[in-house]
Amino acid sequence: MAPQLGPFFKQVDDLSGSFVDRLRKAVAIPSISAQDENRKDVFKMAQFLASELESLGAEVHQRPLGKQPGKEHLDLPPVVIARYGNDKNKRTILVYGHYDVQPALKEDGWATEPFELSVDNNGRMYGRGSTDDKGPVLGWLNVIEAHKKAGVELPVNLLCCFEGMEEYGSEGLEEFIQAESKKFFKDTDAVCISDNYWLGTEKPCLTYGLRGCNYYSVSVSGPAQDLHSGVFGGSAHEPMTDLVNVLSKLVDAHGKILIPGIMDLVEPLTEEEKSLYGDISYTMENLHESLGSKTGIHPTKERTLMARWRYPSLSIHGIEGAYSAPGAKTVIPAKVIGKFSIRTVPNMESKDVNKLVFDHIKTEFAKLNSKNTLDVWLQHDGKWWVASPKHWNFTAASKAVQQVFGVQPDMTREGGSIPVTLNFEQATGKNVLLLPMGSSTDAAHSVNEKLDKRNYIEGVKLLGAYLHYVAEEPINT
Amino acid sequence: MAPQLGPFFKQVDDLSGSFVDRLRKAVAIPSISAQDENRKDVFKMAQFLASELESLGAEVHQRPLGKQPGKEHLDLPPVVIARYGNDKNKRTILVYGHYDVQPALKEDGWATEPFELSVDNNGRMYGRGSTDDKGPVLGWLNVIEAHKKAGVELPVNLLCCFEGMEEYGSEGLEEFIQAESKKFFKDTDAVCISDNYWLGTEKPCLTYGLRGCNYYSVSVSGPAQDLHSGVFGGSAHEPMTDLVNVLSKLVDAHGKILIPGIMDLVEPLTEEEKSLYGDISYTMENLHESLGSKTGIHPTKERTLMARWRYPSLSIHGIEGAYSAPGAKTVIPAKVIGKFSIRTVPNMESKDVNKLVFDHIKTEFAKLNSKNTLDVWLQHDGKWWVASPKHWNFTAASKAVQQVFGVQPDMTREGGSIPVTLNFEQATGKNVLLLPMGSSTDAAHSVNEKLDKRNYIEGVKLLGAYLHYVAEEPINT
Repeated sequence: MAPQLGPFFKQVDDLSGSFVDRLRKAVAIPSISAQDENRKDVFKMAQFLASELESLGAEVHQRPLGKQPGKEHLDLPPVVIARYGNDKNKRTILVYGHYDVQPALKEDGWATEPFELSVDNNGRMYGRGSTDDKGPVLGWLNVIEAHKKAGVELPVNLLCCFEGMEEYGSEGLEEFIQAESKKFFKDTDAVCISDNYWLGTEKPCLTYGLRGCNYYSVSVSGPAQDLHSGVFGGSAHEPMTDLVNVLSKLVDAHGKILIPGIMDLVEPLTEEEKSLYGDISYTMENLHESLGSKTGIHPTKERTLMARWRYPSLSIHGIEGAYSAPGAKTVIPAKVIGKFSIRTVPNMESKDVNKLVFDHIKTEFAKLNSKNTLDVWLQHDGKWWVASPKHWNFTAASKAVQQVFGVQPDMTREGGSIPVTLNFEQATGKNVLLLPMGSSTDAAHSVNEKLDKRNYIEGVKLLGAYLHYVAEEPINT
Repeated sequence: MAPQLGPFFKQVDDLSGSFVDRLRKAVAIPSISAQDENRKDVFKMAQFLASELESLGAEVHQRPLGKQPGKEHLDLPPVVIARYGNDKNKRTILVYGHYDVQPALKEDGWATEPFELSVDNNGRMYGRGSTDDKGPVLGWLNVIEAHKKAGVELPVNLLCCFEGMEEYGSEGLEEFIQAESKKFFKDTDAVCISDNYWLGTEKPCLTYGLRGCNYYSVSVSGPAQDLHSGVFGGSAHEPMTDLVNVLSKLVDAHGKILIPGIMDLVEPLTEEEKSLYGDISYTMENLHESLGSKTGIHPTKERTLMARWRYPSLSIHGIEGAYSAPGAKTVIPAKVIGKFSIRTVPNMESKDVNKLVFDHIKTEFAKLNSKNTLDVWLQHDGKWWVASPKHWNFTAASKAVQQVFGVQPDMTREGGSIPVTLNFEQATGKNVLLLPMGSSTDAAHSVNEKLDKRNYIEGVKLLGAYLHYVAEEPINT
């Protein structure tokens, strides 16, 4: 039976002006984690959040993370953790967001001041952090406030984990989550993260998977120093020639990875999974629009989405050590390092992928019969994540989407990574749901970042409704 | 019959101290053509040369070349032209050198002050410009002086062309040479350029060929902007994948150019030319030493030198637009431009090479069946040059080497380019000889540039003896 959400929804509508004001105040604090001179603003933003949560009646802590590694003159901003409700008979939902933002300057091409929320006639709320991730973070505060003012009890215990270094690698957060999983977060029943986006602009989605990423370097070296191609061209093995040859054996023009054995690691497509793609609100025009060209590989929506979400891909990012400026230089580089990455999917284990990559590259290099020296290594890896979209956490969110937006949500994965997702899953052992508030056109990290007022206000209803459906889900699933 | 060179040689030995002083004065003028603040020193150096030549009795002009293109606040330094002797019954030899130098700072790693000539116990004369090219330029002045003081008549008319922008692209010189070829240089019978180096350290060489250079760019573009490899990897054709593929089809690991038809343009090796390589003073150890590694392609001296001098080579220099910094970035570049060059040899005409290159690249790209867009173009080209080493100009120089050093010179080509060589050949229509003074260890353009005193003093004898043998060569060859 659907929960009675009417009074809550009405209160959200009544408070919408003050919710926009709350976002305006948050956007006005330039909490840029990447810039030393703004570190004080990141702390100020933490204090703003903590004060707001306290005034709503939550138990709040600002937890220090120590000095910033490599920048010991700077303190890491605190993790703001909060608890609202402590009823053993209720489920406990842990929500995550981040209160730091990307850098932004008017001169970068913004139409408005990036740290002044500017609302246009179509309800687009422009400002740095509006969608990434201040809007979603404040969404949870708005949920609490609307419940209080509507006189409706929050149907779950809410735990908040808001960090201030997400745009700079979430320094220290993984260890913090691990440590708190048996303490402040110990009664967590499920996790909800609002830090990604709808696939399009009209239909909400629930995200149940992310690809991982193994990033490799392959170096070829020969001479002791760079050489003049007039003097040595033709008489010395050139590292760049060998590297280009090896890189050309990694992936074909149609995205097919040429490393033997890689595809054997990939979990086969089931009929059940396949059936999820047809209904997803996405078109080839959406792809062409986001590419700015018609250079997509696959002819259909389904194959495009599968290539992006559930199959691995290999991209060559560039070469270090070779001439990279405009113009002409006749150098033979002495040592060049190619960079490429493989986006990983179930069930590709990093060590298995590494072995296949290293073996293949060494085999291909050996075929060249060059006297140069090759080395290949993993720079970093991050694991893929796939949750069960049949878990009550997803079922509840799906019902909430239907209640608020009147449609079934798209069940999506993402091609990229959100490492904190896996951190929460591994630390708590609980199901993690990605429940986005913003849309695909929000331009996070770019100029003119915005959040549509509809996404924000209906998003507050969605987050609140999700908590009510969570409370109603049978306990034994 | 050998000319009587005894009195001239003795005078050179007697004047050797003052010749070193002359070089010391020249090195002390930091005539760096690339640095605005030293332009006055370049003019000062021109004045120094002109004064010295005048005091020796030459007719001297400092010829202006106008403003420097792209740096109109700077006047180009003058070309110092001079005539010594005007006897219709004598041959007229045009000699070229440059009086500007590369930048140099003590902090770059020099053991001594770069603009103070410093002579060590082994007779190595350190200083910027000592070997490149002030020593050789002053060599001609020393020849005149030693003749005058020895009471020996100069056996030829000597024309000098000394420029001050060689280290900055010889701005304006080509047009100047062309214009003067029918005026100041009109009675030139042959040209001699001292601006390169012996192949090793013991044996002089005469250089009769240079390779040309065609420099190409090949671009591949697809999306309208750089893409995130997590989001688009696997679903979009990646320009970098295509470019690496195309570049891998240009040359193999053993330097073999894979462009069909290229080798058909190359002048076949004759037995006569082949026979020149065996005697050349060069070893595989010399190659390994200059490479700083044993990554040479060919097993023998002969094949190594042929690869360097008389066969084309193809080098891939780098890629513009891709990630080239250390570390990791997961970008899919929207547009990448590969740079490569082909060193050309007789009888590769630029337009024929271009056609083969463009056709091959377009054919290889078409095979990829990619939706990306490819473009390929020539950035610049410079023609190869090969003179006849049987011309009297070379015969005279060869006899002079035997007279002064007691050995047959190495007959060499070079793998790189010296564009002024071709300019003089084309403008005068006469044979051009490259007659180097310095040795392979002189470190021109580098720190601790030096000229060995032996090379300088015996070099003066060589230049003078060359003029005497020139005068004796039969007129009808």
